[in-house]
Amino acid sequence: MKRYRDVTGDGGSNIAGQVEAQQGQLRKRLASIASVVAIVSGKGGVGKSALTANLACCLALEGWKVGVLDADLNGPTQAKILGVRGRRLVLTDGGVDPPATALGVKVMSMDLLLAGDAAPLTWDSPTQEEAHTWRGAMEANAVREFLADTNWGELDALLLDLPPGTDRLATVASLAPLHGIILVTIPSEVSQLVVRRSVTAATATTVPVLGLVENMTGLFPGPDASKLAADAGIPFLGTVPFDPALSVAADRGEAFVVALPGRESVQALKRIAGEVRAALSPRRA
Amino acid sequence: MKRYRDVTGDGGSNIAGQVEAQQGQLRKRLASIASVVAIVSGKGGVGKSALTANLACCLALEGWKVGVLDADLNGPTQAKILGVRGRRLVLTDGGVDPPATALGVKVMSMDLLLAGDAAPLTWDSPTQEEAHTWRGAMEANAVREFLADTNWGELDALLLDLPPGTDRLATVASLAPLHGIILVTIPSEVSQLVVRRSVTAATATTVPVLGLVENMTGLFPGPDASKLAADAGIPFLGTVPFDPALSVAADRGEAFVVALPGRESVQALKRIAGEVRAALSPRRA
Repeated sequence: MKRYRDVTGDGGSNIAGQVEAQQGQLRKRLASIASVVAIVSGKGGVGKSALTANLACCLALEGWKVGVLDADLNGPTQAKILGVRGRRLVLTDGGVDPPATALGVKVMSMDLLLAGDAAPLTWDSPTQEEAHTWRGAMEANAVREFLADTNWGELDALLLDLPPGTDRLATVASLAPLHGIILVTIPSEVSQLVVRRSVTAATATTVPVLGLVENMTGLFPGPDASKLAADAGIPFLGTVPFDPALSVAADRGEAFVVALPGRESVQALKRIAGEVRAALSPRRA
Repeated sequence: MKRYRDVTGDGGSNIAGQVEAQQGQLRKRLASIASVVAIVSGKGGVGKSALTANLACCLALEGWKVGVLDADLNGPTQAKILGVRGRRLVLTDGGVDPPATALGVKVMSMDLLLAGDAAPLTWDSPTQEEAHTWRGAMEANAVREFLADTNWGELDALLLDLPPGTDRLATVASLAPLHGIILVTIPSEVSQLVVRRSVTAATATTVPVLGLVENMTGLFPGPDASKLAADAGIPFLGTVPFDPALSVAADRGEAFVVALPGRESVQALKRIAGEVRAALSPRRA
């Protein structure tokens, strides 16, 4: 077995050249995307993925060209929620053409690449027991490739649906320049405890924090998220009332904001999308 | 800067000796724990942490000596749910004494080590942007230390609350011999899509799958989890009806199964704990 100390130079891999080529590809791709926005929670299951999908639909309804990158590699749900599961990825010279929803939202997700419904994500490694050693680096590489190798085309906004965990934001911020961070919580102290740590991680970056959203309002008699936002010194973007119909639409892959425009939850989503649009508009070409 | 190829032998770190000492400590610690059980979802926010805490309380009510290790380092919630937040960790010769609840459930969580309510977990690294390279290895080390350096004492069962993500189970299974895996889902197709992948990851280990729990039953008109269990060839442990009172108790750090013994959700939790107890009883001393 060759060991690190036996390798001369880069061992013939031309790794510097490979990295340079990939960075160039990434820069080229991002040049046609006006805004890249990360949606973050820290706490899982606060409806972050459904919120991301619905904000994307709201922006598309207003005429924006929108993409959604599902950066949750282990629990990818965007293809399901946005109704593009099972669609074939088309490989062209420039990269992979992402499937688009009826509203034109372009979607890329690990779900479109996994072998079957029951197949979990696994990393190449001598044993799965040792795969964790490289997990962080491989996750970062996978997200970088999704960014660089997808034919996003011209976009007004690319929304990144990040996996749970306060530590993922710094990784994504190191891969691509971000133009905004949206934080999501639900009205429970347990959730706020975790999300409060994510707010610290978000404000530690140089990326503008667009604000905090309280999702599933009314489900629990929990603490007020606007107070958390005020205490942390970040904008409060609003509340989205708990609505089982939203979950039903997500299960069906239907655009909830189009299917049930009269719902109170849809009005709330549109208001929040309006705030996001206003914050990002100066960046539009 | 020293590079790998400049290092002779282990560079004087006696790393082999350190690993051997840690492995010895871990083996000694685990020798007094009859069963180690991982609670897994893949999907975040299915109430896995609250379920873990409540099962621990149910087992303690039946006279079992129980510990809970919060293996979700980025979103630690067990100290809050089990009401031991802010309790001081006492360092003794043998290791760290974990705080215990009124029912005697011993709890260890990253939350007890973080500097303050707003502090996220960060890893030592030249920059946070590069920390992801080592995240997997550092996470595994932290869980190994929680297992080895906590004075668990004699336990009938140690429950491990795993973070969301299908890929964490193999890591934990490589650290300690597990005696059971419990999977958790909620009645939505989106959740089942993610949990189905976790079932594959669970059955790929040599650890007995104790079964699947459906949590928050009735919240959404979703698909039947007993069918998912049957299709996957694993036991179905039962459903826990959605109960906002459970979330309120978690926010207060109260033992829900003691505070509101008449609730339908508490009856369901006790039934499921009974199944788990029956499966693990042969291992009790």
